[in-house]
Amino acid sequence: MSAGKDVYGDRSSDGPPQPFFRSRWVPVPGHVRELALDSGLPAGFRAAGVTCGIKPSGNPDLALLVCDAENPVSAARFTATAAPAAPVLLSKERCKLDALRAILANSGCANAATGKRGLEDAAKTQGATAAALGLDPSTVAVASTGGISDYLPVEPIIKGILAAHKQLRREGDADLQKAIQTTDAFEKRACLEVELPSGTVHLSAQCKGAGMISPRFATMFCFVQTDAALEPETADLLLGVCVKRSFDRASVDGQLSTNDTAILMCSGASGVSIVPESEDELRFGEALDALLRQLAIMMVADGEGAARIARVIVRGGDLDGAEAAARAVANSPLVKTALHSGDPNWGRIVQAVGGELGGRPGFDAPLAVDVTLEGIHVCSAGAAIAYDEDALARALQAKEVEYEITLPGDGAETEVFFSDLSHEYVTFNADYHT
Amino acid sequence: MSAGKDVYGDRSSDGPPQPFFRSRWVPVPGHVRELALDSGLPAGFRAAGVTCGIKPSGNPDLALLVCDAENPVSAARFTATAAPAAPVLLSKERCKLDALRAILANSGCANAATGKRGLEDAAKTQGATAAALGLDPSTVAVASTGGISDYLPVEPIIKGILAAHKQLRREGDADLQKAIQTTDAFEKRACLEVELPSGTVHLSAQCKGAGMISPRFATMFCFVQTDAALEPETADLLLGVCVKRSFDRASVDGQLSTNDTAILMCSGASGVSIVPESEDELRFGEALDALLRQLAIMMVADGEGAARIARVIVRGGDLDGAEAAARAVANSPLVKTALHSGDPNWGRIVQAVGGELGGRPGFDAPLAVDVTLEGIHVCSAGAAIAYDEDALARALQAKEVEYEITLPGDGAETEVFFSDLSHEYVTFNADYHT
Repeated sequence: MSAGKDVYGDRSSDGPPQPFFRSRWVPVPGHVRELALDSGLPAGFRAAGVTCGIKPSGNPDLALLVCDAENPVSAARFTATAAPAAPVLLSKERCKLDALRAILANSGCANAATGKRGLEDAAKTQGATAAALGLDPSTVAVASTGGISDYLPVEPIIKGILAAHKQLRREGDADLQKAIQTTDAFEKRACLEVELPSGTVHLSAQCKGAGMISPRFATMFCFVQTDAALEPETADLLLGVCVKRSFDRASVDGQLSTNDTAILMCSGASGVSIVPESEDELRFGEALDALLRQLAIMMVADGEGAARIARVIVRGGDLDGAEAAARAVANSPLVKTALHSGDPNWGRIVQAVGGELGGRPGFDAPLAVDVTLEGIHVCSAGAAIAYDEDALARALQAKEVEYEITLPGDGAETEVFFSDLSHEYVTFNADYHT
Repeated sequence: MSAGKDVYGDRSSDGPPQPFFRSRWVPVPGHVRELALDSGLPAGFRAAGVTCGIKPSGNPDLALLVCDAENPVSAARFTATAAPAAPVLLSKERCKLDALRAILANSGCANAATGKRGLEDAAKTQGATAAALGLDPSTVAVASTGGISDYLPVEPIIKGILAAHKQLRREGDADLQKAIQTTDAFEKRACLEVELPSGTVHLSAQCKGAGMISPRFATMFCFVQTDAALEPETADLLLGVCVKRSFDRASVDGQLSTNDTAILMCSGASGVSIVPESEDELRFGEALDALLRQLAIMMVADGEGAARIARVIVRGGDLDGAEAAARAVANSPLVKTALHSGDPNWGRIVQAVGGELGGRPGFDAPLAVDVTLEGIHVCSAGAAIAYDEDALARALQAKEVEYEITLPGDGAETEVFFSDLSHEYVTFNADYHT
């Protein structure tokens, strides 16, 4: 476990490891057990991480993940941006995303806004990986994170692929994790054992994405492995649902990346098959859901100076309105600075919601919005009500703060996890020049 | 002129006053002449500003503006929020907005999120103003700015109305300005002389709204007076068009206020009538446009630590897409921190535009977006191109920085003025508790 600090407190590589499931917003299912981080990948997977020279710092910057099963099943999700990076375009257009055998991921260069040459460069590294592993290039996904507008250094990467190939091992997930990180203050990684009615399977994941997006750097990655056997449709369905409930619900600064990539790979090596619509599928889905939600919350909690993170829950109204209101609160610099300092300034929440919903059908002014902070009801039907100010001030000192907002009309419910806005965010993104 | 600092440099009350028109983005029409700030209001207007005790600081907090013409013409625009403050609701619902005789404005309390009691309190102060001036309450608009969720202190305000009434004078605009300010670092006020084919008229304005919205404080106000005679339809049309091109195009932090109010009042005392669709109307409109645009830019430039402001111009695509892209750039904390430090990090612009337009019809990935910073073309059809990096770094040290973005397809063009994101913003909004 790498040394680092997150919103929950200091973490030292010398001290006892913190549990992976550490947020009150992620109840751990009874059939999921956390394994030690040196347990290695599920059967059928090997990984490696090396330094190939992309990062001037000399830190690890190239990762390789391989599934040794002959017919593995996979599923993938990518950023919804209109300006996707070359590796995203290549992986989406030229890969069998339901039958991936390997992932090549680099940090230190996003290969974004690089046009035709960027695509060609990405294809060269994909081809080199396939050649080294003896695979069809269409079974090798590529993922990059780092500086936007920089070209990929292809030659060092090809040499790095050969080095990584030699180092592939079951316990290579820690090295992979290090090689995909950019500004992450701590690692986001888990090894889980999942008891299913049909037997025991394993789930592991390596994730990157800091509490802030640093100068010219972008992106979140999440690579997930299991030794369970899934149908391609099941893998796609479960990954899709769980990504929607995790990474899609997290916002650090409202800035959608050019490179976001999440890939689930299933080796089937456990011999446990997950039949669609079975109890196994339900239980496996619960485990994947908890895993991805905790990782998404860890991403929000990362970043220098993050003092607090929050969950905003919006109920009522139609789904579009509720979603827009939740995003407006999560991305409001006024709400985020108040969160940072533990300031019970709920007027900013009303302002953010009202500003977003103004002019939207079904939300006529004056908006009868209710606001509850950490269980304390402060605003009813759009108007201030009496509450215990001392109790509220104390409650807002928590590391995880919850805002509940109720809109007129019923039906919708949504949530967004978000981080605060701190001096360190500005320092990180303004003071250090590219 | 109050002491203070803006993005253009130090301003001292001892030194020579800076010209009002100081942005390169506001060409001053040849028929508009800037008058000294102590020239007083146009004929037919009187104003006052007093301390009535709303602000704990003892600073002026109550302003009164009166038009002495018997049948003045006016027009008004208000915030589009779904959660408007009580004074906005009252003014919109119970005032003859095309025939206003007076405005009562206070700072130190926004009377927002105050429900039925807030409306009653606002009505009491409206009634007291009408009684003091011998007017119909429906001709008195009210405007408040300050803490959201606080109730209006009605008794001190009613006493203040009587005090302000005694102090009404042509030269009262400086006092009015002081009494409407909250966190503004400098005043935003102008007295203009406008040569029209039919004669000379005057335009004055007092505006508030800081480069940041401070803890629990919200709002921009702009009060404009002229001695020209306008038809109600003309006043409404011109104010509407000019507000769309000025305050609607300014963003400090993307946060729409609960209290925004802009009111144009026309006394007609000059004897010059502005006939619809005449050359007079065109020229008067140009003057009002320049006035409001400069005020909007001054609002963006206000605020502690604002080092730079920017204009983003988006051309191409449909208007909705262009508008969304411009707002996405203007409100991106990554773009804003790069602007603050003069960092030529245009990848963040591509990221912001791509993130916003992802999934929108007509903007398929990969987006062929062009980016030009201060006239230097850095990105063509979505891909990096070679440019003079030193020249760009130098150009971005300017106080006013211009970004031009071209989207695929033609048709739309829009612009947004915005400020940077600085440590001082965080300090102002996080460190000082309410």
